[in-house]
Amino acid sequence: MNVKERLGEIAQRVEVRLDELLDAHCEDGLLKDAMRYSLTAGGKRLRPALCLMSAEMFGGEAKALDIACALEMIHTYSLIHDDLPAMDDDELRRGKPTNHVVFGEANAILAGDGLLNLAFEVMLARALDSEEDMPNILRASHIVASAAGVRGMIAGQVADMLFEGKDFDEDVLKYIHSRKTAAMIKASVMSGALAVGVSESDISALAHYGDCIGLVFQIVDDILDETGDQDKMGKTLGKDAQADKQTFATLYGIEESRRIAAEKTDEAIEALAPFGDKAQELIALARLMKDRDN
Amino acid sequence: MNVKERLGEIAQRVEVRLDELLDAHCEDGLLKDAMRYSLTAGGKRLRPALCLMSAEMFGGEAKALDIACALEMIHTYSLIHDDLPAMDDDELRRGKPTNHVVFGEANAILAGDGLLNLAFEVMLARALDSEEDMPNILRASHIVASAAGVRGMIAGQVADMLFEGKDFDEDVLKYIHSRKTAAMIKASVMSGALAVGVSESDISALAHYGDCIGLVFQIVDDILDETGDQDKMGKTLGKDAQADKQTFATLYGIEESRRIAAEKTDEAIEALAPFGDKAQELIALARLMKDRDN
Repeated sequence: MNVKERLGEIAQRVEVRLDELLDAHCEDGLLKDAMRYSLTAGGKRLRPALCLMSAEMFGGEAKALDIACALEMIHTYSLIHDDLPAMDDDELRRGKPTNHVVFGEANAILAGDGLLNLAFEVMLARALDSEEDMPNILRASHIVASAAGVRGMIAGQVADMLFEGKDFDEDVLKYIHSRKTAAMIKASVMSGALAVGVSESDISALAHYGDCIGLVFQIVDDILDETGDQDKMGKTLGKDAQADKQTFATLYGIEESRRIAAEKTDEAIEALAPFGDKAQELIALARLMKDRDN
Repeated sequence: MNVKERLGEIAQRVEVRLDELLDAHCEDGLLKDAMRYSLTAGGKRLRPALCLMSAEMFGGEAKALDIACALEMIHTYSLIHDDLPAMDDDELRRGKPTNHVVFGEANAILAGDGLLNLAFEVMLARALDSEEDMPNILRASHIVASAAGVRGMIAGQVADMLFEGKDFDEDVLKYIHSRKTAAMIKASVMSGALAVGVSESDISALAHYGDCIGLVFQIVDDILDETGDQDKMGKTLGKDAQADKQTFATLYGIEESRRIAAEKTDEAIEALAPFGDKAQELIALARLMKDRDN
């Protein structure tokens, strides 16, 4: 199976499980509809893929499935809240009307809250499910909570709003992106391995890989915004792409950004050396993230 | 120590710990300021008190302190989001400008998200802190997650918005309040005991107590709204109190509402019979909740 087929297979399995989890935890009605709308609105399921591929290196993909779903719930809630009129005020995402356009602002806020809460409910339930796996699932859940939280993704979004339309330097740009995007990418890789149980040195290696691909992910996003390829791919052109916002592409230029992305991808792949052949999927995924065109 | 002194002592301890947790988890700056603003804006700290008194019945108050703080974080986030322009659009709470009035709508949404996420971060960290306590802390955290979530508090808020300004019957009123308010009151009591570790029959008794006082809490709130006592006490008169909204007081009348509150308080106290003298604090708190004038 090549990496694209594997991504498709993971996306399908995660989507089935997300559906099951929604049905198990929500009553039918407006809230569930609003949550499901954004949860099923497409997306590459990159975070679940990183989590499950990482878990599979240690032979425990099944143990990480609910963590992978929780990662996608948290990612989706962050998109719903980021799109709100008070935030980025986006009316389209992936070519579809955003949550608040369809369900109204109040329900979009609550659907986001619901997804964030459900992510933790699901991880806690999974931890309680097996006494043997409990400490590992807990460690995985805690990494996710930290990355999503007030020193991670939420801090990044606050800083992003604060510096919107302002001139800022490389340090601020790195601060924002390391928190807003890269933290959850890194936590996705780490949580999969943690859910199975790994050594300190293994988790350090994965953290290094996660740091590198988190940065690559953002640089490539910025290049695609700049070169307009995202438009062709049907992705929303929100404020991010329209405004003359500071990005890696504007700061370093396209060519230098591409060079850094390639360099960091190599570094990510080197970090996986201790895992030998088992790391093939994560290596292929790192290359795909660098070369993606949407 | 009488129950009011005990409440004061708990509030103080919880506020010190909330401060510590904020400092430990947040970088200085706008997000932390916004979170701290609402977290320290007063309030009776009723949910932490129920949690800690319940834990103390089983001799484990210290084990439940971080769960108590998480309950208050979740309660506070729900107030911040409920006050937003897209929701209840309240400009004052407890006599102070609401979070979005001070920090802007985007930061208020993010401060709420941050508090919800931090609540889980804190509970997960506490569970990881001790292998011995881990399963108990997890059970407590899971009850909190369920009560706060998409079948609990969030579902109640969605229904509350959906039926706003509409005529509805007793069943809808009970649906809304059992989820929006009572679920977290009940989870507060149960989580304290669960954090220490209790038998199935003990937790059933506490669940029964929690169901009763959750209802009493809401009925008394409705009576105070109706009789305008909340105004005198300096509490915000938001839309809730101004509009001719369906409440227990409008549905049953003041006298019948008072009778039901008294009856349910007795039932709550009876449910604590198995705990004998150890239940004195929770008994006194139930009476105080019935007789409160703010």
